[in-house]
Amino acid sequence: MQETVSINLEMLEVSIESRDGSALLKTVESLHYADIADFQETLTEYEDLEFLVKTLGPVGYADVLAELPEELVETSLYCFNTSEKRELFAQLSDDDLTDVLRALDEVKRSEMLGILGRKDKELVRTLLKYDEDTAGGWMTTQIGRVTSEMSVKTAVASLRVNLESADTLSRIFVVDENGMLEGKVRLRDLAFNTWDTPIRDIMQPVEHPVLATADQEEVAMIFKKYDQTIVVVVDESNRLLGVVTHDDAMEIAEQESTEDMERIAGVSGDQPEVSYLYTTVFTHFKRRFWWLFGLALIAVLSGYVMLRFESVLSGIYLLSLFLPMVISAGGNTGGQASTMVIRAMALGELTPADSLKVAWKEFRLGAMLGSLLAISIFVICIGLLPVFRAPLPEEITYLRFGLSISISLGIQVVFSTLIGALLPLLARSLRLDPAVIAAPAITTVVDVIGMVIYFVTAQTILGL
Amino acid sequence: MQETVSINLEMLEVSIESRDGSALLKTVESLHYADIADFQETLTEYEDLEFLVKTLGPVGYADVLAELPEELVETSLYCFNTSEKRELFAQLSDDDLTDVLRALDEVKRSEMLGILGRKDKELVRTLLKYDEDTAGGWMTTQIGRVTSEMSVKTAVASLRVNLESADTLSRIFVVDENGMLEGKVRLRDLAFNTWDTPIRDIMQPVEHPVLATADQEEVAMIFKKYDQTIVVVVDESNRLLGVVTHDDAMEIAEQESTEDMERIAGVSGDQPEVSYLYTTVFTHFKRRFWWLFGLALIAVLSGYVMLRFESVLSGIYLLSLFLPMVISAGGNTGGQASTMVIRAMALGELTPADSLKVAWKEFRLGAMLGSLLAISIFVICIGLLPVFRAPLPEEITYLRFGLSISISLGIQVVFSTLIGALLPLLARSLRLDPAVIAAPAITTVVDVIGMVIYFVTAQTILGL
Repeated sequence: MQETVSINLEMLEVSIESRDGSALLKTVESLHYADIADFQETLTEYEDLEFLVKTLGPVGYADVLAELPEELVETSLYCFNTSEKRELFAQLSDDDLTDVLRALDEVKRSEMLGILGRKDKELVRTLLKYDEDTAGGWMTTQIGRVTSEMSVKTAVASLRVNLESADTLSRIFVVDENGMLEGKVRLRDLAFNTWDTPIRDIMQPVEHPVLATADQEEVAMIFKKYDQTIVVVVDESNRLLGVVTHDDAMEIAEQESTEDMERIAGVSGDQPEVSYLYTTVFTHFKRRFWWLFGLALIAVLSGYVMLRFESVLSGIYLLSLFLPMVISAGGNTGGQASTMVIRAMALGELTPADSLKVAWKEFRLGAMLGSLLAISIFVICIGLLPVFRAPLPEEITYLRFGLSISISLGIQVVFSTLIGALLPLLARSLRLDPAVIAAPAITTVVDVIGMVIYFVTAQTILGL
Repeated sequence: MQETVSINLEMLEVSIESRDGSALLKTVESLHYADIADFQETLTEYEDLEFLVKTLGPVGYADVLAELPEELVETSLYCFNTSEKRELFAQLSDDDLTDVLRALDEVKRSEMLGILGRKDKELVRTLLKYDEDTAGGWMTTQIGRVTSEMSVKTAVASLRVNLESADTLSRIFVVDENGMLEGKVRLRDLAFNTWDTPIRDIMQPVEHPVLATADQEEVAMIFKKYDQTIVVVVDESNRLLGVVTHDDAMEIAEQESTEDMERIAGVSGDQPEVSYLYTTVFTHFKRRFWWLFGLALIAVLSGYVMLRFESVLSGIYLLSLFLPMVISAGGNTGGQASTMVIRAMALGELTPADSLKVAWKEFRLGAMLGSLLAISIFVICIGLLPVFRAPLPEEITYLRFGLSISISLGIQVVFSTLIGALLPLLARSLRLDPAVIAAPAITTVVDVIGMVIYFVTAQTILGL
């Protein structure tokens, strides 16, 4: 079904290359603004972008602008003069307009605020006060408001007067004279009841409202759990402020899981709008460097252990062959366990209170994984090493050597699985983001422990 | 706002413990079925579960059942006799009913199908044919159907007759006599137009329908991109089959990112319903073991390199101190790069066609990261090693040693960044899931390469 879209996008490209404005306008008629926004991201020449934006004009371009990644907003706005900008802003819903202004730097933003009418300016200023990643930062204030004293007739009349957009009709709320939330009314109940029915009789309670200061994660959780299409936002005194709509819910959920994934990989910092290509190399650099540097320093600890046991290693050369395997098995099991636990926590399934359950589960799991890995490697060792006549000191048999390797492998796997599962839970109970204590950190920690396990086991079993 | 929920849940617990049915029924009135389902998951005694389920009864329990993780469905159904089950099934929407039956094994499923009436049985059988992770697997067929020849009056009358549930009113579609999709009608247009208006005049085109066989990822993408509350599902000949609703969109998006995260951590296989605690230890074991085993075998390659260069290592003991650092820096940068690229691909931002752009970006990034890490470590080396009188052979200065370490670190970081970024793109262009070639695989590969880089650099610069 997406084939028509790509044909239309090709036609759009041709019309831009040939600077054919009427062909362009005809093509965009059958394209969704989200597709046009995606297309604009692929334009590399400013002149092409300018032709597209100016041909669409402020009214036609408004929806496209709202879909662009933050990095492209300023350049696109630059194509319009002041009165065109005013025209464009008038097309945007208040939450989209706020997002557009958020994408600009301080100076540009106050310049744009100057373009807005007084009422809009105040509204946007209020919305800008909420953190981007809170319910208030995502909400729109464009909702229908009626009071419980109204009849269906007066309610419909009042909605008609204040109707800002058709969307408003799907979010009609009942407030008292102080703006306190009392309930909601469905459009169908207005439509299918007699004119004189009091609103009080058809209003329903609002389920699961959130505070404007609530974290976006809480908002996404409510959308997911209670299958709602909107979440109502109120202030501390239950005054109705606005609603977050379902399309934002998907975006929030995606942002949250992208953030978790990046933290699990040791990439730091928020990245509100997901955009790998549009993030500058320098920003990527800053988000990755400190983790790498810190982990490199910790890795020297592993090196220190290795240095201390260098005599063991040079006593039995063959120990080098299996050292990386035992060490990295720890990193891999630890990474698996931590990722599973971090994800389960993000989805609200696990809390630090479940630590004991998790520990018991991962202990059994680690024991199973460790035993089977140890047995497999033991069999491989005593099967293959004699074939290759691998060099061992005379007093050490292949059997004893294989035993040393596989026992240290088993211990390392059990330890790492437990550490991997419990560190994120510990982090959460210390009110840290569990995803920060993830794969790379755990790998580095279990590397050090693994080194010690490997050499101490060898010393003990091989009697060095 | 969630505090009231937890107070109610505590009251629910008390009423179950004291086997007080009327208190239980009173408490659940103010609880959402999703909360009750979450609560049921925490019950460990079968008797408690049975009391909860039986007290709610088949009608009251239906919504709760639809929210349960697959693993709990069978036990819960077990609490009801045949006629109660029939009553319960009648409460479920067709997609929920299908999901419930999917959670059972073959035998139980056909037993339950036997309970259903003929019409429902056929419907569910048809739905069961679609893969769980396709549009068909997620859709509900409970929609309103009218024809374009109808007037508003006859359309409303026909909807009233076939009204299966109130939800149907928000999804009214226009089909021709063969069931081909022609368009959609909004409830508000039925309500606000005169009785004799032809449906043809008020119907609107349906945007972005998908095939029933379309992958769930495509469905989630359409929800997200086009901000829709439903996605329409058709067959190859454009016959209207049903719709996927917005609440499923969130779940699909979450499943997809959970799957990606798990693959990035080297956990294999689908896990359709996310549930860490309810997955048995043995299932976890199977999902993790093979990755660990395969990676362990590859890690022996690193060991082989180390064994071959054992003479270099025992020539300059100090080389051990920095070996783990250089090796793990590769795994960490590779893991960062691959995760960023895999996530950007999952969100539809990158395709294999962008490989050159990504390669150039990551090359510059790797060069920056590598240089700064190399310089930092060089400074630390020549600053600290003399202080600790670290032992080096007489002919090698600290300067030359530091140079060798930092140059190999720099090369390793550049290489690993490139490999980490490009392998997932390569996987995608070979039509493999890019997330499979992720962190653990990359770590293991760059470990081997890193070993070689480290020792060859040392041999060259230190003249061994």
